[in-house]
Amino acid sequence: MSTAATRQFIVGVCGAGHCDTALAALAEAVGLQLATAGAALVCGGLGGVMAAACRGARAAGGITIGILPGADTADANPDVLVPIATALGEARNALIVRTADVVIAIGGEYGTLSEIALARKIGRVVIGLQTWDLGRDAAGEPHIVAVATAEEAVAEALAGCRLRLIQR
Amino acid sequence: MSTAATRQFIVGVCGAGHCDTALAALAEAVGLQLATAGAALVCGGLGGVMAAACRGARAAGGITIGILPGADTADANPDVLVPIATALGEARNALIVRTADVVIAIGGEYGTLSEIALARKIGRVVIGLQTWDLGRDAAGEPHIVAVATAEEAVAEALAGCRLRLIQR
Amino acid sequence: MSTAATRQFIVGVCGAGHCDTALAALAEAVGLQLATAGAALVCGGLGGVMAAACRGARAAGGITIGILPGADTADANPDVLVPIATALGEARNALIVRTADVVIAIGGEYGTLSEIALARKIGRVVIGLQTWDLGRDAAGEPHIVAVATAEEAVAEALAGCRLRLIQR
Amino acid sequence: MSTAATRQFIVGVCGAGHCDTALAALAEAVGLQLATAGAALVCGGLGGVMAAACRGARAAGGITIGILPGADTADANPDVLVPIATALGEARNALIVRTADVVIAIGGEYGTLSEIALARKIGRVVIGLQTWDLGRDAAGEPHIVAVATAEEAVAEALAGCRLRLIQR
Repeated sequence: MSTAATRQFIVGVCGAGHCDTALAALAEAVGLQLATAGAALVCGGLGGVMAAACRGARAAGGITIGILPGADTADANPDVLVPIATALGEARNALIVRTADVVIAIGGEYGTLSEIALARKIGRVVIGLQTWDLGRDAAGEPHIVAVATAEEAVAEALAGCRLRLIQR
Repeated sequence: MSTAATRQFIVGVCGAGHCDTALAALAEAVGLQLATAGAALVCGGLGGVMAAACRGARAAGGITIGILPGADTADANPDVLVPIATALGEARNALIVRTADVVIAIGGEYGTLSEIALARKIGRVVIGLQTWDLGRDAAGEPHIVAVATAEEAVAEALAGCRLRLIQR
Repeated sequence: MSTAATRQFIVGVCGAGHCDTALAALAEAVGLQLATAGAALVCGGLGGVMAAACRGARAAGGITIGILPGADTADANPDVLVPIATALGEARNALIVRTADVVIAIGGEYGTLSEIALARKIGRVVIGLQTWDLGRDAAGEPHIVAVATAEEAVAEALAGCRLRLIQR
Repeated sequence: MSTAATRQFIVGVCGAGHCDTALAALAEAVGLQLATAGAALVCGGLGGVMAAACRGARAAGGITIGILPGADTADANPDVLVPIATALGEARNALIVRTADVVIAIGGEYGTLSEIALARKIGRVVIGLQTWDLGRDAAGEPHIVAVATAEEAVAEALAGCRLRLIQR
């Protein structure tokens, strides 16, 4: 029987609804490796980075959750296994980062920046791949854990998930 | 490859967070039969009717989605496979019925009534098991399809899902 | 200087976005009398019952708050003094009843029913004018305080506001 | 009679719930000058920058709207004239920037950054006073209009409001 203690990790993948092929390849690799490691993926459910990450995760049989801004589950990209139709518009970004144990931001425009900020506000670790550079906080700690590869992003994300499991 | 057309049906199961054993048995039977029929179940993720329905669905290997009012995925009952932490309070009821193709209301207090009303507002069929009696609309149609057994509820729900698939 | 203790009462007025002239006249009388009594009015900000109630309240110089489902404050009816653009769709109904000290339901379709249910869920008194008949609870108390005139509705609403002020 | 065309401008003021006296003085000056210019102020309704801005606005008789994260209007600072109890947590940040014609960010931590990002996502001009430095976009335009004084912030905000009025 499942319990909260054994529930699988959920990693948020945030990124824009349109992206170039290089960024899509990066997102797909992140999704694939997350699923291979047994983590579920939660995202905004649309195209671009989100679709690429879901595609990678599904290729490895992972659970993909799409928390959509619109009113129709049919808006989800084809590799979303569990579509949530919120009809909340951009306010749904807060739900993505709440549901995630850790967030990986890939590239990103203003929507991604809002997810980074909302995640940090509620204490989630954010790992960044080619995303906003926000510098360091007053204690000298970087606001975002910047990494260069999908491998590093997934390794940091899993470490963050384990840390969160211990802390709660 | 999955597509929107082949995505499985999602049935909402609404009911109070506390219930007696008879209502729990009914909810568990509904969950079991929905999962057996291949439908995913979405609910509010907490106890009572929700927990019983999830338990039934998981016993048949179904997907169970819990759209939680609180901020922590750990609040989900142990048979929620996909917990969504909304931190939206009661406003999350709107998300449950948006995500569902059809809603089954089981017993129920004010929260359930709000889900029935929100579902009807956006055109979802609502099937009722021992729930609010709202009478009929101006055209003489009942607001809720009242049924007496879990079997009838699931049969009506699946028929409603198929109808919605055709209409969209 | 204002303080929380002296903040004016806020009464929610819930009703459909389209209504006949008789119901509009009733809503306008409610709005006028609420404002005359010094209460602010909160509603969904659109037409029908909402617009009529705001028109009445503004005629007496009252504060009218419209919590809109859409993304644009320009969607508010012309007598909304304070428009809130939520872009939350029907989920905004939960915010109307949270903000209100007491709710008056006038006529009403499914949206109004959802507001009645959400209000009762969080313990707000609901006064009904030509609205849903929900019967009585297990203790024999009516779910809605049914009244026949605008005067009675406003008197009951103000009594409910005073009671809430004492209880908190 | 009011109309959408003549409805007053609404300026969002975003900043942390705790701040030092220098930042509070800046926020208070912004609130005072906004109200003197006839603009309404919308904010998150809590302390720090929000409370100081409301205090300034009320001193000039302005309308102050507080869109609160919690469930109780009594959580608003004493200079909020119109409290909205959302019970949405951080998701309410999206409502503040939707309701505002233009946003002024003052100082700020992660919550403020999320409001900046959400505002930019939906096309609102953001004016910054001692806030995050986000650099420039691909076209070389700054993401935030950085200014040094309350006077400049209010002048830029009013210009932004007038521009938005023309565009819609």
